Amino acid sequence: MPKKVSVGIYLDEVPDNNIQHALTDARESGFNTICTELLTKKYCLNELNGDPQNMEEPFGWFDMALPSADWNSSVVGVLSDIQEQTESHISNVRCRAAQLLEKQIGYAHHLGLPATILKLHPGESCNLSRLIYSKVTTDGGYHNNVVVWMRMPMVFSQQAVNGAVDESGQGSDEKEPISSWNTWNKFRTVGCAERRTFPVLDLPVDLPDQEEIDRWLGEPVKAIFLCEEAFVSNNKGFPILPKRTQQVLRSFFDINVQIIMICKPQKSPNDYLHFKQYIEYLHGAYNTDWEEDPVRKYTKGYEDYLQSPLQPLMDNLEANTYEVFERDPTKYILYQKAMAKALVFKIPEDEKDTKSLVVMVVGAGRGPLVRNCLAAAASVQRKIKLYAVEKNCNAVCTLLHLKKHVWGDSVTVISKDMREWNPEEKADIIVSELLGSFGDNELSPECLDGAQKFLKEDGIMIPENYTSFISPIMSPRIHQDVRPFQDINKHTNCNYETPYVVYMKNFYEIAKPKPLFVFCHPKSDVKETNDRYEAVEFDATQDCMMSGFAGYFESVLFDDIMMSIHPRSHSTGMFSWFPIYFPIREPIQIKKGQKVKVHFWRCSSKHNVWYEWSVSEPVPVPIHNVNGRSYTIGL
Amino acid sequence: MPKKVSVGIYLDEVPDNNIQHALTDARESGFNTICTELLTKKYCLNELNGDPQNMEEPFGWFDMALPSADWNSSVVGVLSDIQEQTESHISNVRCRAAQLLEKQIGYAHHLGLPATILKLHPGESCNLSRLIYSKVTTDGGYHNNVVVWMRMPMVFSQQAVNGAVDESGQGSDEKEPISSWNTWNKFRTVGCAERRTFPVLDLPVDLPDQEEIDRWLGEPVKAIFLCEEAFVSNNKGFPILPKRTQQVLRSFFDINVQIIMICKPQKSPNDYLHFKQYIEYLHGAYNTDWEEDPVRKYTKGYEDYLQSPLQPLMDNLEANTYEVFERDPTKYILYQKAMAKALVFKIPEDEKDTKSLVVMVVGAGRGPLVRNCLAAAASVQRKIKLYAVEKNCNAVCTLLHLKKHVWGDSVTVISKDMREWNPEEKADIIVSELLGSFGDNELSPECLDGAQKFLKEDGIMIPENYTSFISPIMSPRIHQDVRPFQDINKHTNCNYETPYVVYMKNFYEIAKPKPLFVFCHPKSDVKETNDRYEAVEFDATQDCMMSGFAGYFESVLFDDIMMSIHPRSHSTGMFSWFPIYFPIREPIQIKKGQKVKVHFWRCSSKHNVWYEWSVSEPVPVPIHNVNGRSYTIGL
Ligand SMILES: C[S@@+](CC[C@H](N)C(=O)[O-])C[C@H]1O[C@@H](n2cnc3c(N)ncnc32)[C@H](O)[C@@H]1O
Ligand SMILES: C[S@@+](CC[C@H](N)C(=O)[O-])C[C@H]1O[C@@H](n2cnc3c(N)ncnc32)[C@H](O)[C@@H]1O
Repeated sequence: MPKKVSVGIYLDEVPDNNIQHALTDARESGFNTICTELLTKKYCLNELNGDPQNMEEPFGWFDMALPSADWNSSVVGVLSDIQEQTESHISNVRCRAAQLLEKQIGYAHHLGLPATILKLHPGESCNLSRLIYSKVTTDGGYHNNVVVWMRMPMVFSQQAVNGAVDESGQGSDEKEPISSWNTWNKFRTVGCAERRTFPVLDLPVDLPDQEEIDRWLGEPVKAIFLCEEAFVSNNKGFPILPKRTQQVLRSFFDINVQIIMICKPQKSPNDYLHFKQYIEYLHGAYNTDWEEDPVRKYTKGYEDYLQSPLQPLMDNLEANTYEVFERDPTKYILYQKAMAKALVFKIPEDEKDTKSLVVMVVGAGRGPLVRNCLAAAASVQRKIKLYAVEKNCNAVCTLLHLKKHVWGDSVTVISKDMREWNPEEKADIIVSELLGSFGDNELSPECLDGAQKFLKEDGIMIPENYTSFISPIMSPRIHQDVRPFQDINKHTNCNYETPYVVYMKNFYEIAKPKPLFVFCHPKSDVKETNDRYEAVEFDATQDCMMSGFAGYFESVLFDDIMMSIHPRSHSTGMFSWFPIYFPIREPIQIKKGQKVKVHFWRCSSKHNVWYEWSVSEPVPVPIHNVNGRSYTIGL
Repeated sequence: MPKKVSVGIYLDEVPDNNIQHALTDARESGFNTICTELLTKKYCLNELNGDPQNMEEPFGWFDMALPSADWNSSVVGVLSDIQEQTESHISNVRCRAAQLLEKQIGYAHHLGLPATILKLHPGESCNLSRLIYSKVTTDGGYHNNVVVWMRMPMVFSQQAVNGAVDESGQGSDEKEPISSWNTWNKFRTVGCAERRTFPVLDLPVDLPDQEEIDRWLGEPVKAIFLCEEAFVSNNKGFPILPKRTQQVLRSFFDINVQIIMICKPQKSPNDYLHFKQYIEYLHGAYNTDWEEDPVRKYTKGYEDYLQSPLQPLMDNLEANTYEVFERDPTKYILYQKAMAKALVFKIPEDEKDTKSLVVMVVGAGRGPLVRNCLAAAASVQRKIKLYAVEKNCNAVCTLLHLKKHVWGDSVTVISKDMREWNPEEKADIIVSELLGSFGDNELSPECLDGAQKFLKEDGIMIPENYTSFISPIMSPRIHQDVRPFQDINKHTNCNYETPYVVYMKNFYEIAKPKPLFVFCHPKSDVKETNDRYEAVEFDATQDCMMSGFAGYFESVLFDDIMMSIHPRSHSTGMFSWFPIYFPIREPIQIKKGQKVKVHFWRCSSKHNVWYEWSVSEPVPVPIHNVNGRSYTIGL
């Protein structure tokens, strides 16, 4: 999270054509970027009209007017608005527009600008898409250090739509403003916008409804343009933004947009000082709230960052990983409560001096649940005999140190895989924490099946059960970030057939999560399979692009003690688990009102467990990770 | 370049087994790392002897004694010295050693230590190599975040060699100490030491000769161990290092080693304060010299960093690239001198008021040579008519700005590829700077062939000629860094069939550079081919591993004005070109006295130019980049 919001200014004209002065001016008023046209107006006009150019006349800014470091950081180049020409039926008109665009992109590349701005209008943009794709987005592309911001209002006015290049007349009966999202979606899908083309949005004075905004929050929006008219005056005469606009801006701060103030002709950056200060004040308040949130301290820097899920059964977790988990302020409190409740349930008040229980923490790690268990017993004055079972010999070393110096005889440390341990006595209560982001994905079911053999007939297991949840999501950014996980030694699309752990921010939830797989402990019959198959249906409430599925879990530890990472029941302050993300190979275009039907399997072999997933509605897609060809979890 | 040298301390024993205290102590004396055994002595002994372990006793440090951040940064774990056991003929002995090593590596992984230390002795180490390879170095390896420093003295004493595990008796007649380099070379070659296994060296009190040290400077040495005995007292009684040792240390500072002081049993870090201060003083002096070197300012951070060569003909250079070149303090002075000399040569003193010359700067970029040319003419009071020819339209924009505001009518700007320009008048002098690190590798010959048609019969070209040079080098580090340049869309080994531009530091020059290809301008017959073939022979003066070839150039600009990046004639202060590196696919083991014979071709087609290279002695290797399958330079 940046400490300060970046506020830039859009200059229609650069006074005296002096860019150095313009940048200094803008900086003096606290703006850190200026947006300005890249080539001279005359050159652009001649080029579009096919008129001869004066070959003695420089066509763009004098590059030596600013040091490279300034061009690279502080100037955003505005490209000519040429969609009308690129989509023209006249070949010559298209060619000239293409030439101009190439010249501009080439000059942006020469100067090393951090970004360029190109207008996107309603209607056809397919040829424009191709131009950008071939010049900018393609991997081997010549200008592939250039970034293009596609600028459009958040919603198109009716006027804009009617006047659009598109002749289909689509939508022209309606009175309502039309979302620009569909236009953007078409543009970026045709032109594969990966990481070099981003939407930037003009905030309309009349804001669209929340759904519209939520969908935009799923897109990699890089900047919001603000004009004076968006502001109102407070009673002291200072410009402020209406409440709703403030809220909307805050939600965009969450995905790291920068703000760009549109400077009217004849005005100077200095005239916008108050606006800028107000935005900084807003962002400051946002930042303070943000920093005071205790969870944020631990999640900082992880926003939308893909990680491969841990495999604590097959691999040994490292000290550092344990250390992070152990800092969770919520999880251990919930466990301690659950354990205390279970102890009281098992030993009535009048037997507390005579009866003692055997409690086993299986998968004890470096012992936090062991400590919680001792504390729970003390808090309800119940007697227990405690075992700590752990298969990671390095964590066992920690347990032995703790036993030697802290716990003494009250705890017995067992350096064993719970599936292979055959203790002499059985347990009244088995406590474990073997959950992954998707509940069962760290093979808690298989491990606890192994432990159940040493649970007494009437014994209790904590947790009692866990349920996984999924919901379809749109997140072009997260989907794109899957690409580099390609592994040439595996199946071609293995990276799209693997789940990732991600603290998701820049995404749109297409529909609310629904439950998928349920596991209960102890099982009535331990031989019952842990394989699963479920199909779930969702309804799309607006057009969108589906990028895959977000996964969560809820777990009942004991009785009414619930632990959850489901967005609508999330245990407050808990940060031990981020959501899991199941990608699909190709994003799917979804229309408002369409049904999304998704299928999930949990499969297993002697050595592995894995998930497979597929979509059958609105369009069928091949099963992902069939036979675990791309991803398995080692038993 | 690190601001401060990292000085650590090697503790044979940790007092009271209190690691937290030991680290605090060390830090208080200014040491930022401690090296200490990882597992308890008892555990290691039992394991090696096959004796039963006490299962209640922790086998290693209490991980919670330090926060992860400390383990991760400040503790280096010493592994048991087990080479004798791993190379034993008794299977059980080998197995136990392997188990102990695995346990230690696993615990280092658990703690997240920055490195571990393992002793390497003369003689057989092949099974030890395999263990490290399989546990640490392999890509899919389980413990692949562990780094192993192989510790050995810079030279083995005769005693060590005789007592070695190796029974071949090799070298046992000689009196001289034996280099440990061969032992290391065998170990790392068998065990593919890539990026996780590094040599660390005990500095002997009697230093070996410079050749030996030069060879070690080609290896990725991470640390130098110093003992008290290496120091002498100055007249104030303070410890200092002998002159030669100081020099050797400085040369190792150049490849970023850290220093580790060996702390004797019964002594504490505090007893080594003076030694540490002296090392810091030495490094400070080194750093000051380093920072005062003007070239260093521009080369900082580029040490041993691989870059793909520019293609200024096919691509357009960016403003930033020109900006960096234009800062070179030497190149333009040399050019200006050469131009002044040429002008005087062409116009005798008595004709200077009547005669005027046509001078063309071809490939003018953003104009520095144009400015130099005007200055040269002014300095010798000769009249010229100046053309600036440039094919990069973005740089032409700069030239037009400069013409408009600075040069006026004295310069004519031509926005053309020199190969396609047909001027109305011919040139007396054609000036160009189209050289790459290897001289002709940016296609200066082909471009100047195109320009020669507008040179007068008696015209001069600056530069007059250029010669490429090569020398065989050893640099495991640079060779390893080629690996990530793999491109799955090209030939499998394309990354090893491509040259790189590298500011080489961590390398050993196996033999002095020798000249390869020569190009002269103007040509007597412009149709003469620019293709070349040469074979060059070198003699190896000591055993080493050849990783490829370093390339340089020398150029005569005019008369006696030379410009060079050849290490032995390098133009002072010039930083426009780093050396070029031609890798070979597999490093070749070379023995002292062997001949290295290398073959280089410069080939061309209608659209491309490329190099091919091969070795025929001491062993033949397949031709690299045949037909330009992996790398070409676009015409
Ligand atoms: C997610 S960690 C939880 C550790 C600790 N209870 C805590 O809350 O910090 C799960 C632990 O279970 C251990 N574990 C996983 N499967 C196991 C098995 N089959 N037998 C014993 N331990 C197991 C892992 O090594 C790991 O230490
Ligand atoms: C290494 S730069 C030198 C630029 C400038 N003379 C300097 O010293 O900073 C070479 C320049 O030659 C230009 N160039 C290369 N081949 C050319 C050609 N065939 N015709 C015209 N210009 C060419 C490149 O675009 C580039 O600007």
